[in-house]
Amino acid sequence: MPFIMSRVNIKIAKNKELMLKKRLGLAIANVPGKSEEVLMVGFQDNYPLYLRGNGNEPLAYIEVSIFGTESHIGYEGLNTAITKAFYDILGIHPDHLYIK
Amino acid sequence: MPFIMSRVNIKIAKNKELMLKKRLGLAIANVPGKSEEVLMVGFQDNYPLYLRGNGNEPLAYIEVSIFGTESHIGYEGLNTAITKAFYDILGIHPDHLYIK
Amino acid sequence: MPFIMSRVNIKIAKNKELMLKKRLGLAIANVPGKSEEVLMVGFQDNYPLYLRGNGNEPLAYIEVSIFGTESHIGYEGLNTAITKAFYDILGIHPDHLYIK
Repeated sequence: MPFIMSRVNIKIAKNKELMLKKRLGLAIANVPGKSEEVLMVGFQDNYPLYLRGNGNEPLAYIEVSIFGTESHIGYEGLNTAITKAFYDILGIHPDHLYIK
Repeated sequence: MPFIMSRVNIKIAKNKELMLKKRLGLAIANVPGKSEEVLMVGFQDNYPLYLRGNGNEPLAYIEVSIFGTESHIGYEGLNTAITKAFYDILGIHPDHLYIK
Repeated sequence: MPFIMSRVNIKIAKNKELMLKKRLGLAIANVPGKSEEVLMVGFQDNYPLYLRGNGNEPLAYIEVSIFGTESHIGYEGLNTAITKAFYDILGIHPDHLYIK
């Protein structure tokens, strides 16, 4: 069961949360054998974050846990897809988003 | 020091939080040498979670960290006890609860 | 990119959050090659925590992630500096603060 837990320092409206959830369900399919059918996602908004001492711009901190994969195949595609989803839906710039 | 940090997508009333805290204190004793006396627990309720794209049912995501044990003895009992506590107290079904 | 994510069971006023953020930016410099310029920090206050079954005193649970270091040089200084920052600014006693 993979998990994607997101924290952002801005508000996530419910409709955008649902859009993000859907996009993350598609993103996980970059990893062989994974899909939304085995994914748990969580969101925390209005979470105070600071990057380089600055908390004034939209920021995201995202924890991704993937188990049961023998290789890292698809991880780069997953990272790219997550980054793009948060940019498209919340306007968070790729260099203001970090994935652990 | 072991830690059990819980996130659920429903409200946890204070009295249920105290019941859960007590049950987790008992659950940790499944691991040799551990007890509530060396345990830190935390709760986050009303946390948006989605499993298989669906966020309408009660869900829980629980992070357990145990340090200083040389084996995994008692982990299965701990998992079972945590799962049962959240079912008994919050009504979260075992297949809607994930432990990392 | 190192991350320091804090959870405390008390309220963090905005001015104290900014003080903590600044202190954590100094603390990370204990690790060679790290500084606030490559640090992301986050704060969650009013987070229910229990230590040894007791949730009545100020408590903190802090997750520190450091990547790209080949040794653990500076980790002890970092831990000490984090612990001191939370004591100085929020009054959380060192034995009520845990760093993962």
